[in-house]
Amino acid sequence: MQKLEMIYEGKAKKVYRTDSPDYYWVEYKDDATAFNGLKKGTIDNKGVVNNKLSAVFFKLLEEKGIATHFVKLINDREMVVKAVEIIKVEVVVRNIVAGSLAKRVGLPEGTLLPQTVLEYYYKDDALGDPLINTSHIAALNLATPEQMAVIKETSLKVNDILREFLAPANIDLIDFKLEFGLHKGEVILADEISPDTCRFWDKTTGEKLDKDRFRRDMGGVEDAYQEVLRRLTGE
Amino acid sequence: MQKLEMIYEGKAKKVYRTDSPDYYWVEYKDDATAFNGLKKGTIDNKGVVNNKLSAVFFKLLEEKGIATHFVKLINDREMVVKAVEIIKVEVVVRNIVAGSLAKRVGLPEGTLLPQTVLEYYYKDDALGDPLINTSHIAALNLATPEQMAVIKETSLKVNDILREFLAPANIDLIDFKLEFGLHKGEVILADEISPDTCRFWDKTTGEKLDKDRFRRDMGGVEDAYQEVLRRLTGE
Ligand SMILES: Nc1ncnc2c1ncn2[C@@H]1O[C@H](COP(=O)(O)OP(=O)(O)O)[C@@H](O)[C@H]1O
Ligand SMILES: Nc1ncnc2c1ncn2[C@@H]1O[C@H](COP(=O)(O)OP(=O)(O)O)[C@@H](O)[C@H]1O
Ligand SMILES: [Mg+2]
Ligand SMILES: [Mg+2]
Repeated sequence: MQKLEMIYEGKAKKVYRTDSPDYYWVEYKDDATAFNGLKKGTIDNKGVVNNKLSAVFFKLLEEKGIATHFVKLINDREMVVKAVEIIKVEVVVRNIVAGSLAKRVGLPEGTLLPQTVLEYYYKDDALGDPLINTSHIAALNLATPEQMAVIKETSLKVNDILREFLAPANIDLIDFKLEFGLHKGEVILADEISPDTCRFWDKTTGEKLDKDRFRRDMGGVEDAYQEVLRRLTGE
Repeated sequence: MQKLEMIYEGKAKKVYRTDSPDYYWVEYKDDATAFNGLKKGTIDNKGVVNNKLSAVFFKLLEEKGIATHFVKLINDREMVVKAVEIIKVEVVVRNIVAGSLAKRVGLPEGTLLPQTVLEYYYKDDALGDPLINTSHIAALNLATPEQMAVIKETSLKVNDILREFLAPANIDLIDFKLEFGLHKGEVILADEISPDTCRFWDKTTGEKLDKDRFRRDMGGVEDAYQEVLRRLTGE
């Protein structure tokens, strides 16, 4: 397979065409942004960690029967994925209160949610990725009700699988964001699963092992990303 | 029935106990607020119009089989209602894009929605009444799934009934906010239905006949409220 011209550069990744219309070539960058692009920086080696970790998570999910865009790792920073038309809905699954949910509903960060919270955000940088619901999604025609049913069910399954996988590494999965896309008419899991898109807390100490260290200027950002990779792969 | 001590003063109404624990006595004020209390003012005679219009709407809905808190009008500014424990979820039903929805999803005000939009807001002034979804409602234990099913179904029915009722008065129902409460274990429609809580546009001219005239300093506020009452009751 050949890497051809770049078709899209996002905040964290570059996407390239390949010699097949069914596949894209993704390159993970060290660029980091937060607060809808207001904060910008670099996290050394983030691209490598996120590429490798996404591969680990996507392989695990495929084994458990979840359809993902992952095809194969190319090198430290690159993977081949199935080309999808991204559904403009970001799905957030939450087990413990953190970040915007703490502000929205006035519960302290760290509160265990008695029920899993599932949120949909309109993937639109200009609008600041606003919270929306299934009626907005239907009215805006972002996805069909049938597609949303698959997305909801898959997101909750991913939560169960990831939590079980992370527990022996002494990591709590606080929340995470997923993106889905359409590949040959089928809804599949796309984008990335990494410390950029998940909140990981050490089970014992509560230490943050994710992008919140960057968002909140906590220091130890690179080490935290590396630590997650180490705990999950030994690297 | 006797009006006893005031138990709650809100932004638009005062609620009094009566000699029966099952009933409250509501007094509609002329006070007007907007933007979560940031803007304050008075709309002359608003209390009278909203009391009378709410009575008209609640009676209509009762006739159509919707359980409401309305019992009877006492005078121009007062009504007796069934005492409820308010469910801390404000329901917004939208037919046409306006207000916060225009900002949230980037559609121009006046856009006809291809599907009815149904939104839930957490009724909490300190948090600014944030948008939430059914998973937040479950996690915060604001209502049971069974109660939410009743609330959803009732809200959509209210939309149909009000639109049909308003059409001959040449009024378009753009959107509206409902509050529900528990009375003897049953979910019933409570609060008010008025130009404070609905967007009413003249079908022909698009002229706003509601609180947006106050929010946006458009003038003619009192006349607009009066005009809705006149069109619906002849008064
Ligand atoms: N399999 C895929 N096919 C097509 N686009 C994808 C795929 N996976 C992810 N994308 C998209 O690639 C873009 C680049 O990713 P990223 O840098 O994370 O972007 P963003 O700035 O939107 O977060 C995003 O729009 C993402 O949705
Ligand atoms: N039938 C009812 N029983 C008890 N409380 C009610 C009933 N109907 C409305 N309320 C509540 O009365 C309060 C006063 O109304 P309002 O002035 O509109 O308050 P707010 O400032 O919350 O908008 C509100 O909290 C409203 O939810
Ligand atoms: Mg991204
Ligand atoms: Mg009110």
